[in-house]
Amino acid sequence: PDGWTDLDSRAVDTVRILAADAVQKVGNGHPGTAMSLAPVAYLLFQKVMRHNPADTHWPGRDRFVLSCGHSCLTLYIQLYLGGFGLELNDLEALRTWGSKTPGHPEYGHTDGVEITTGPLGQGLANGVGMAMAARRERGLLDPDAAPGSSPFDHQIYVIASDGDIEEGVTSEASSLAATQRLGNLTVIYDHNHISIEDDTNIALTEDTAARYRAYGWHVQELDWTNGGTEYKENVRELDEALRTAREVTDRPSFISLRTIIGWPAPNLRNTGKAHGSALGKDEVAATKELLGFDPDKTFEVGDDVIAHTRKLVDRGAEALAEWQSSFDTWAAANPAASELYGRMVKNELTPGWEDAVPSWDADPKGIATRAASGKVLGALADKLPELWGGSADLAESNNTTMEGVPSFLPTDRQTKMFPGNPYGRTLHFGIREHAMGSIMNGIKVHGGTRPYGGTFLQFSDYMRPAVRLAALMRLPVIYVWTHDSIGLGEDGPTHQPIEHLAALRSIPGLDVVRPADANETAAAWAAVLKNKDRPAGLCLSRQALPIVPRGTDGYADTSGVAKGAYVLKDAEDGAPDVILIGTGSEVQYALAASDILAAEGTKARVVSMPCREWFDEQDQGYRDAVIPPDVKARVSIEAGVSVGWRDLVGDAGRIISIDHYGASASAGKLFAEFGFSGDTVAAAARESI
Amino acid sequence: PDGWTDLDSRAVDTVRILAADAVQKVGNGHPGTAMSLAPVAYLLFQKVMRHNPADTHWPGRDRFVLSCGHSCLTLYIQLYLGGFGLELNDLEALRTWGSKTPGHPEYGHTDGVEITTGPLGQGLANGVGMAMAARRERGLLDPDAAPGSSPFDHQIYVIASDGDIEEGVTSEASSLAATQRLGNLTVIYDHNHISIEDDTNIALTEDTAARYRAYGWHVQELDWTNGGTEYKENVRELDEALRTAREVTDRPSFISLRTIIGWPAPNLRNTGKAHGSALGKDEVAATKELLGFDPDKTFEVGDDVIAHTRKLVDRGAEALAEWQSSFDTWAAANPAASELYGRMVKNELTPGWEDAVPSWDADPKGIATRAASGKVLGALADKLPELWGGSADLAESNNTTMEGVPSFLPTDRQTKMFPGNPYGRTLHFGIREHAMGSIMNGIKVHGGTRPYGGTFLQFSDYMRPAVRLAALMRLPVIYVWTHDSIGLGEDGPTHQPIEHLAALRSIPGLDVVRPADANETAAAWAAVLKNKDRPAGLCLSRQALPIVPRGTDGYADTSGVAKGAYVLKDAEDGAPDVILIGTGSEVQYALAASDILAAEGTKARVVSMPCREWFDEQDQGYRDAVIPPDVKARVSIEAGVSVGWRDLVGDAGRIISIDHYGASASAGKLFAEFGFSGDTVAAAARESI
Repeated sequence: PDGWTDLDSRAVDTVRILAADAVQKVGNGHPGTAMSLAPVAYLLFQKVMRHNPADTHWPGRDRFVLSCGHSCLTLYIQLYLGGFGLELNDLEALRTWGSKTPGHPEYGHTDGVEITTGPLGQGLANGVGMAMAARRERGLLDPDAAPGSSPFDHQIYVIASDGDIEEGVTSEASSLAATQRLGNLTVIYDHNHISIEDDTNIALTEDTAARYRAYGWHVQELDWTNGGTEYKENVRELDEALRTAREVTDRPSFISLRTIIGWPAPNLRNTGKAHGSALGKDEVAATKELLGFDPDKTFEVGDDVIAHTRKLVDRGAEALAEWQSSFDTWAAANPAASELYGRMVKNELTPGWEDAVPSWDADPKGIATRAASGKVLGALADKLPELWGGSADLAESNNTTMEGVPSFLPTDRQTKMFPGNPYGRTLHFGIREHAMGSIMNGIKVHGGTRPYGGTFLQFSDYMRPAVRLAALMRLPVIYVWTHDSIGLGEDGPTHQPIEHLAALRSIPGLDVVRPADANETAAAWAAVLKNKDRPAGLCLSRQALPIVPRGTDGYADTSGVAKGAYVLKDAEDGAPDVILIGTGSEVQYALAASDILAAEGTKARVVSMPCREWFDEQDQGYRDAVIPPDVKARVSIEAGVSVGWRDLVGDAGRIISIDHYGASASAGKLFAEFGFSGDTVAAAARESI
Repeated sequence: PDGWTDLDSRAVDTVRILAADAVQKVGNGHPGTAMSLAPVAYLLFQKVMRHNPADTHWPGRDRFVLSCGHSCLTLYIQLYLGGFGLELNDLEALRTWGSKTPGHPEYGHTDGVEITTGPLGQGLANGVGMAMAARRERGLLDPDAAPGSSPFDHQIYVIASDGDIEEGVTSEASSLAATQRLGNLTVIYDHNHISIEDDTNIALTEDTAARYRAYGWHVQELDWTNGGTEYKENVRELDEALRTAREVTDRPSFISLRTIIGWPAPNLRNTGKAHGSALGKDEVAATKELLGFDPDKTFEVGDDVIAHTRKLVDRGAEALAEWQSSFDTWAAANPAASELYGRMVKNELTPGWEDAVPSWDADPKGIATRAASGKVLGALADKLPELWGGSADLAESNNTTMEGVPSFLPTDRQTKMFPGNPYGRTLHFGIREHAMGSIMNGIKVHGGTRPYGGTFLQFSDYMRPAVRLAALMRLPVIYVWTHDSIGLGEDGPTHQPIEHLAALRSIPGLDVVRPADANETAAAWAAVLKNKDRPAGLCLSRQALPIVPRGTDGYADTSGVAKGAYVLKDAEDGAPDVILIGTGSEVQYALAASDILAAEGTKARVVSMPCREWFDEQDQGYRDAVIPPDVKARVSIEAGVSVGWRDLVGDAGRIISIDHYGASASAGKLFAEFGFSGDTVAAAARESI
């Protein structure tokens, strides 16, 4: 490309030997892709992307996602060369305890890492989310600026590997990216024909470029092997392809780049061995000789090389200064949007937003908690413009559409049922739960909006890898998982969650929230929205649930919801014989049982436990006040597996659960057949006492 | 098609009104697709497929998979018309307790249902598995027969919907199907442009036919809307397309069929409402009038219609008789293969196979359980030809390749590292864990082979929906999940399972098996292979684990492994002060602790618990003998979350677990930093006592 010098070429070769050395030193890791992608990453970081090593949180920066996270050195070495905070000793500490250079890039751990990657396919889908977020943020803050003229215009770059291309989540997200016409997204597909099982001919024979054309992407194909005749890293051509990709604004861009993994390692290039193992001393030395480095030196970086690459710091400062002036102009002209921007940057909610949260009067018939959730969303729509989301094709079932808001859609994709525009708010993921989860992660790391996404609780399984990553990254995304038990009824065992609550609670850092009625649902939404550093899944009923009185007739108000569990209705003298703990739709049976028991002279306390994780975070005093250690008679009731409940009910307790699959019938029939009722709770209480 | 009569057309219209009536009666369900697909399903069941209503287990039958399981009536009504065992009262009982017609088709519940479908995307991937199984079975039993001449030649038909097409698992499986050149597979894609959120333009704008061409499928496009001008169900054209699909034997076939959902319901056709709700009384009546049925009658089936369609029983008997003669000829000529066939049909293992299971001498250094697993597979290769499998691109890491066996690959897909042939044995799924799981389900329901599939335990999350379905269907597939804890080391938190053991144990009907050393691994494989009605996941270490003595020095032999838990090493007098329960790689720390405690005069019993599910199935006597109720001092140790362990250790027990994410460092460092050692177990034991 213009201005590419021998020093740039030397820097690229330095990347290769650093990658080989770093893996060789620790004895394990992935050198091959980092070596062959060296010119690609260098071109992006040094020549193409607008970013600032001194401020990796600058909102105007281009984003980079390394979907093939195992090739973490691809990123770490650029962060070192560009002066983003990593130094040579960090590379030397690759994959060791406490280092800034763990085996896969970790968000929040290493400055300059935009998102945690490693589980294949996630990064590309995250990139789709970032590109969507960029458009939505622009729409919120600077909708009327001419294309490319807003401080909120920037590019999303993704490098993906053969493995990413094989994973289904990538297919889901890529199809949607084209529907959404994400012109700000460019994916470079490192098509090296090698994965761990070596030659990918055994498992990947499709024409991937044609597949992306079929999705509707702008596709360019580059071949550095020149049809297998001669390997030449044509950086100029790639640079031009990247420029073309930026100029295509009505479609995402896919650049298929045929490379040879491990290039130029003389013996191990183009092998599966170069993918995931140290090259070995001899091969590292041979590679160094080939590239004109001293085979006896390790981590050799010429002073001229690092001086050259660190000039990115100055260029970054200039870019930021230029952007800042455009930003300041915008801020002065747009005070309201600027205020919103200020909140979004800090993940702060609009003052007074909680006043908009609805409440319901007691009603024995009640409504489904999914319906209550929909009302909460609708009520908050005006107060929290940063809140947006949708469903994986279950909008009406998940109650995820805020009434009257436009859909987030290119104008030619809107429909009669879902009018929208490119800056709209309701998301349509299609039947792609996994991509939904990954896209939500990308949206959240991109900026200050707050995404939610809905599907049936059953299908949380489809999106589980993305949910785990949200928890690992501590991203406050919100899942709206409705139809949360056998209470969904006739759709039967393939759709009825049984193990899902337990399985989701097992994920460290995920809040699993299962409100008991409409008012708990409102309080749960409020509590979830206040959390800034953790994902939450709202598990909501399909069926109507009674709305219990609040602050009257012995019933507590909903202030305890945020504490995870609270005494909903106590024994009259506050000295219960037995504690009945319920969640969600089963709290009603605990209440019914307390009446049955009261008639027999047994004093029961009903504890509603909408969120186990929040309760576990309370101090011992509060927890003991809700579940007194000396009251050993306890019953839990939840329409899910028993797993995890023994901790709460203790050796003397009883657990009412369903530890087998459901069936196709009406909800009422199923609850009765499977032993969920006031009577069964009362019977268990008698046993426990 | 040839021989299509007015009675056939009347039967097709009968299907439509039955679908509308059945949903209307129960008040919920999915009428629209069943109505518009009526001619497609009728054509397949009555005219195209070779099957026999009187014997739905006939191995020579063509298979049918309804990937859009919500449209269960598409299948049920054909099973009724064709005489497969369903009657009108079964249709009337749709989606009610105990009926043969649950909300989604359930394998093992309704005769003629080849596999449970409903979670979208699964069915198409299952079909890929069936097609693979058909080829492997033919290769085992009748490899030399000319194409199309073997009793083991037949077709796999799948109907898939827009939702199936959107799900990533379908993309994964479809790419692999083309690599595998599955000429025996035909997918009809019901491209009706409607999903629950109505017009799919909001989420599905790709050129799906072009996408399938890019994978390498044979693609045909039919449009019953004739470009939107006139809706005409051109059954003859579809019949021809199906014939062409059968004739293309080097690629799977994809028939994209543009339909209008709910056809011909006058007001609700082509709407999301027709997809998932009863049409309403008036619309049902209007549809009946349109089709010349009495609007006041329900479930109206002309005697002439049912008499006509039930002739399939005779045709099926003829087809079977014809096949039987070809089968008998084959059996007489192939006694050895015939014997294998006899075993496979009954899911019986070769007599004496267990003698081949290897064992290891005690060795403090030991080997990884994944390595032991690989040795077991290799040792069983000759004895159990029905056992086959592979990995999602982690063959060497998962140790899933039986030494020296060819890969299951078209000849033009084999590589230097993996030579193979179309009848080979080692499977290469690519980095497609989800498809692997779904394909394994398809393989298992198809016939008597026994599939296994490997990936890292972490990525069990990617395949979880398929694992659940295996458990729901009680299919004895085997997962080889290696790298089962922080013991995988440097790859860090994205790759280290933390919650996975607990989350998998939560799935009803899945055996989670985590052996402690090489000999337990062998015993675990043996126990798993003997189970015929449940899936199992072998959770295996990356790192070497000591091989403990067996039947000597106070150590038990491995006969207790199949019981799920057993006393590995007892207190000398058999009266322990404390019980130390470990699984997998942490059993060594329990053993170390027992030595530490013994030195202090505390008597510890070490219980190895390779499979919680198997232990729970033992009688109370055995369980109490292993964990005596009166010994309340107990410690559990497992490198996973604590969830679920309280049941075993009780209120007085201690749980050594890791309830947060891991880190990137060596395994030794991580175990030490995160509190897994003989010392921590001993300290916990002192606390518990």
